[in-house]
Amino acid sequence: MGKQITKNAISPTRQEDYPEWYQQVVKAADLAEQSPVRGCMVIKPWGYGIWENIQRVLDRKIKETGHVNAYFPLFIPLSFFEREAEHVEGFAKECAVVTHHRLEPDGKGGLKPAGPLEEPLVVRPTSETIIGETYAKWVQSYRDLPILINQWANVVRWEMRPRVFLRTAEFLWQEGHTVHATSEEAMEETLRMLDVYADLAENVMAIPVIKGEKTPAERFPGAVSTYCIEAVMQDRKALQAGTSHFLGQNFAKASNIQFLSAEGKQELAWTTSWGVSTRLIGALIMVHSDDDGLIVPPRMAPRHVALMPIYRDDAERSQVLEYCRSLATQLRDVPYFDGKILVDLDDRDIRGGDKAWQHIKKGVPLRVEVGPRDIQADAVFVGRRDRGPKEKQAIPRAEFIATVGNILDDIQDGLFQRAKAMRESFVQPIDSLADFEAFFTPKNPDKPEIHGGLALSHWADDPTVEAKLKELKVTARCIPFDGPAEPGKCIFTGKPSPKRVVFAKAY
Amino acid sequence: MGKQITKNAISPTRQEDYPEWYQQVVKAADLAEQSPVRGCMVIKPWGYGIWENIQRVLDRKIKETGHVNAYFPLFIPLSFFEREAEHVEGFAKECAVVTHHRLEPDGKGGLKPAGPLEEPLVVRPTSETIIGETYAKWVQSYRDLPILINQWANVVRWEMRPRVFLRTAEFLWQEGHTVHATSEEAMEETLRMLDVYADLAENVMAIPVIKGEKTPAERFPGAVSTYCIEAVMQDRKALQAGTSHFLGQNFAKASNIQFLSAEGKQELAWTTSWGVSTRLIGALIMVHSDDDGLIVPPRMAPRHVALMPIYRDDAERSQVLEYCRSLATQLRDVPYFDGKILVDLDDRDIRGGDKAWQHIKKGVPLRVEVGPRDIQADAVFVGRRDRGPKEKQAIPRAEFIATVGNILDDIQDGLFQRAKAMRESFVQPIDSLADFEAFFTPKNPDKPEIHGGLALSHWADDPTVEAKLKELKVTARCIPFDGPAEPGKCIFTGKPSPKRVVFAKAY
Repeated sequence: MGKQITKNAISPTRQEDYPEWYQQVVKAADLAEQSPVRGCMVIKPWGYGIWENIQRVLDRKIKETGHVNAYFPLFIPLSFFEREAEHVEGFAKECAVVTHHRLEPDGKGGLKPAGPLEEPLVVRPTSETIIGETYAKWVQSYRDLPILINQWANVVRWEMRPRVFLRTAEFLWQEGHTVHATSEEAMEETLRMLDVYADLAENVMAIPVIKGEKTPAERFPGAVSTYCIEAVMQDRKALQAGTSHFLGQNFAKASNIQFLSAEGKQELAWTTSWGVSTRLIGALIMVHSDDDGLIVPPRMAPRHVALMPIYRDDAERSQVLEYCRSLATQLRDVPYFDGKILVDLDDRDIRGGDKAWQHIKKGVPLRVEVGPRDIQADAVFVGRRDRGPKEKQAIPRAEFIATVGNILDDIQDGLFQRAKAMRESFVQPIDSLADFEAFFTPKNPDKPEIHGGLALSHWADDPTVEAKLKELKVTARCIPFDGPAEPGKCIFTGKPSPKRVVFAKAY
Repeated sequence: MGKQITKNAISPTRQEDYPEWYQQVVKAADLAEQSPVRGCMVIKPWGYGIWENIQRVLDRKIKETGHVNAYFPLFIPLSFFEREAEHVEGFAKECAVVTHHRLEPDGKGGLKPAGPLEEPLVVRPTSETIIGETYAKWVQSYRDLPILINQWANVVRWEMRPRVFLRTAEFLWQEGHTVHATSEEAMEETLRMLDVYADLAENVMAIPVIKGEKTPAERFPGAVSTYCIEAVMQDRKALQAGTSHFLGQNFAKASNIQFLSAEGKQELAWTTSWGVSTRLIGALIMVHSDDDGLIVPPRMAPRHVALMPIYRDDAERSQVLEYCRSLATQLRDVPYFDGKILVDLDDRDIRGGDKAWQHIKKGVPLRVEVGPRDIQADAVFVGRRDRGPKEKQAIPRAEFIATVGNILDDIQDGLFQRAKAMRESFVQPIDSLADFEAFFTPKNPDKPEIHGGLALSHWADDPTVEAKLKELKVTARCIPFDGPAEPGKCIFTGKPSPKRVVFAKAY
């Protein structure tokens, strides 16, 4: 093929308007939409299918590390919520509050809230306080420890500027809450779960992440220390993809979780909490997708193969459909990752080009076309989502069945390598405040463009630093575990610094 | 063994105080507990494990029947909720209402709700209205139909007399919501899902159910007709275990779900909804359990085998533990139902008797003890939860591994047959109002005892009947599909009746 100007499926492109490109990918891939309830999203079947895959893989990892699932109430009495001062301070401004328990006629033909509650109930923004109250009853002796429990739940944080998947008033997540007899054990747990998250992100979602500790200003409200995995998007912004909190004895104190030690002493317990949410889907979109729509890493894809019969008349139709059904049956029996190949035999009566583009926009890893000529050659015509939409290849049927798993692995690995190379290209060691400011300043402030990246700079914990960062709309993403110990001077204060910290603009 | 007075693990027994027995079984089996939030429960790991099994099996059946999962908002704007008159009437008295979106200092050192919402939000008691609003946007043409979507979610109904699993302010469920082009197709869907529920109840939960249609007074608010599966508990009360609603065009009208037909006409769509909830766990408890605690049908059990090493000293301990670990590994590789044998190797350092009783109270299908003498004989000592706690049998290790699946099947089948026989013994055709009143009147009203059952009586749809039933605290459970067409006269009004209806006191 000669050079042509190809129109992309998504308008605008990433370069033209990244935030709007994101919204258009979500729409074109049929992932989710704004609901009529302010800030709450409807997660559509294709988006929810990705969430189900995250759930299945992560739930297995959570259980393999010794945890069990349980379920705690949606509502938190206001008085519990107030017990941990930093915690309530952190969440008070974004809480949905239930104040009534029924509706009655308002005298104008409508209804109004009635039955005021004695104590208002907060819809959980996170469950440390309500779960802590319960754990305090369960824990009596060191024999009751550790408690290793996770829950899958919805939570509500009243976001002022909601954005689908990234910041929504209601979102879905898992939250682990554990209790331990010692500080060491609680810290081990905190870091173990961070590793589980990093493994999920890198080896299943193909998203490279930086593991590290949050700076004090970025800690979870009430935590002693917060650890995170940070990913970087194609617009060079960072996204916190998962957090694991070492809560020390703060919440044990607030909820009075005490135990009798083996030595017969009454002691305060040590707790942790950790979570990932539907926000991960936002990361997946922004790390992998292109100007033709979503790209789903095969291990996360609700369908691996979109199988499209091509025919011109009824005689061809029945021949092609029969071939496709038999091919689908064979493919569905091929093991892949933790299950088998998932095939969407798409026999809808719509134009072939439109159909193929729908699957491209949804990010299905492989498109397989079968027409009468292919059947004659006993071959299939395969397009990979990680390559151009017109780049397709004829593969003998038997060979395709034998290698489909390898092709998917190749796509999965390619996406990870590409994302890793992208991230590396965004990293910049920066040693002066002037360079730092330049790095994070758009060239043309009227049309915000893609700029910045991950600045690796020396830093000291100081209020003046936080003020400066706020002004630049930059945050310290984490103190990375992997960075070398390399003494230097804080670029903001000149104070000594043992190690570089990762800074970025962030979602 | 000679006759002895055996103390039961649960006090009181079913005969002594059935409602209290239920609470004590829930407690002894570690299934759930009241939370500090009025009417909301904490579902503990063992109870949640049963819910996960219900979810896994039912989710597969829901997908096999062509549905996909999605997720809709927790909150419903008051104005949507008001659109279907019967619907809002049915739920207005038991709604949690969110009126504020943040908290601020109350001037007395505490916090108070702030940021009043322009329009109050109802925490979903069910999602017909919010999902209908969304579907109205999705459906344009007959090509968009059918829509076959399910969601797994929490819902809130402000129960005045909460009871764990049976009636809780918050509960977990799945709700299917479908849209169809024709009445016939919607009715087929309604009945297909009722069959799915009956299959789950009978073939997985070992709970025999009666399929039928609700009488008009018992319909879902806003439905044209409601179908149900009804189970009967050991105290002779009925429990509605699942419902499937044919909504006709009522909700399509309320939400304006219209489509352009193949003939080019604008038409109102037809919708259905169907759900089962954590209430099923209440049914499971009350159908199968005994005075020693919970009995879990093997296909629903979070663990099939409690493996208990028995030893007196450290030398024995290491020998026995090694044998048990190897046995556990072998058992975990044995296929059973839709997975493999789940083993709890319980090596906690507590008294053997206490340990065995814990597993009995939790309803683990098989208890397997292994001590030094068993190892010498290469045999295991097996107790079945469907038999007496002291009835145990030595089985050669290889034989046990080869037959463990059959033993579990035998327990599963035995529980179903026992429940079916129990139900049959509670059924009574009743042909006069006097007999009906006597059947449903406790002999000694001061000490409510187990009485009544399932009365099969002729009936006519008439307000006087409803009044009489209310007085007796009896409800028409359903017009059973299976009952013979047998014309008679309504025992309340003398009006002609084509068929007997099932009446019972109910949960």
